[in-house]
Amino acid sequence: MGKPLDEAGLDTIFRTARTYNGYTDQPVSEADIRGIYDLLKMGPTSANQHPARFIWCMSDAAKEKLAACAMDSNADKIRKAPVSVVIGMDEDFHEQLPWLFPHADARSWFLRDEAGRKEHAMRNSSLQGAYFIIAARALGLDTGPMSGFDAEKVNAAFFADQPKVKVNFISTLGHGDPDSVFDRSPRPDFDKFNRIA
Amino acid sequence: MGKPLDEAGLDTIFRTARTYNGYTDQPVSEADIRGIYDLLKMGPTSANQHPARFIWCMSDAAKEKLAACAMDSNADKIRKAPVSVVIGMDEDFHEQLPWLFPHADARSWFLRDEAGRKEHAMRNSSLQGAYFIIAARALGLDTGPMSGFDAEKVNAAFFADQPKVKVNFISTLGHGDPDSVFDRSPRPDFDKFNRIA
Repeated sequence: MGKPLDEAGLDTIFRTARTYNGYTDQPVSEADIRGIYDLLKMGPTSANQHPARFIWCMSDAAKEKLAACAMDSNADKIRKAPVSVVIGMDEDFHEQLPWLFPHADARSWFLRDEAGRKEHAMRNSSLQGAYFIIAARALGLDTGPMSGFDAEKVNAAFFADQPKVKVNFISTLGHGDPDSVFDRSPRPDFDKFNRIA
Repeated sequence: MGKPLDEAGLDTIFRTARTYNGYTDQPVSEADIRGIYDLLKMGPTSANQHPARFIWCMSDAAKEKLAACAMDSNADKIRKAPVSVVIGMDEDFHEQLPWLFPHADARSWFLRDEAGRKEHAMRNSSLQGAYFIIAARALGLDTGPMSGFDAEKVNAAFFADQPKVKVNFISTLGHGDPDSVFDRSPRPDFDKFNRIA
């Protein structure tokens, strides 16, 4: 029911947007970060779970702590980015459902299903991770999502006080430096991975 | 580096967009579906994995087959929607990496790591599921994503010929009927699930 985006809007969030390996000196403020969250939190999650937990590393000390958990060239990207972000997930998200999903006893659906909680936390925090990427782009910022890190180390460094929160993935955030972008990897034709039934 | 979206654009993809339980009679064409995929496939996945496999149920027979796998009121939503979509994931996505990620031997990273493949398939097909939701909205369409279904039944009904492809979640797609929308569930304040470090 929304007004369709114009061509420039489609470019911004999908078509010409890229994953960045480096950023310009233009800073990212706490207001920018709050603006991203205010958008991304509007994206849907199953039973309004909101399992994602975000740590926005703005200080050199926090970025250094995250860089120490990352593989190869990722460490340097994390150190140099204006902000580096840990996208975590709370595997006990069901404890929040009484206020997040007040019109049903959704907590009870997950109470005795630890495997189901882990699956839902992964699925829905990944949805929220994608909303983070798109929301940043929609506000004129860029991201560099990464899976190359030691999850145990990230959990110990950032979630030691919350043992049921685990890292899902990490990302850099800033105003992308066009010189830091790789050539775009191939994209599949529709018929490769889609079926009309 | 993209031009930030205007207020109407932010409304379309996040702020006033909603999950719909019913749709108007306005049809959805195969061209619409291809347009959604052409956008969503531009969204980033780890090592360009593209693990998502989409089945777009347009025929009554296909929608009936999916409805038979769904719980409670979801069955009726699936039958009545212009299109109902199965978002699957290929747990053997690594077999495609030689052409999707040609500049490194990424297939070898996953070859002996079945648990890692399952985790990456779930994470990255969920990212792609979120891109599907946002791409549909960006083109003026609406979705109704759902987790309430019997996964074993969906796999048997739609992926019997591809045993390594599993359903992640399902969704309806169409032009949303505003009367079908529930009140919006609460959204967390920034300080609830975020930390600046």
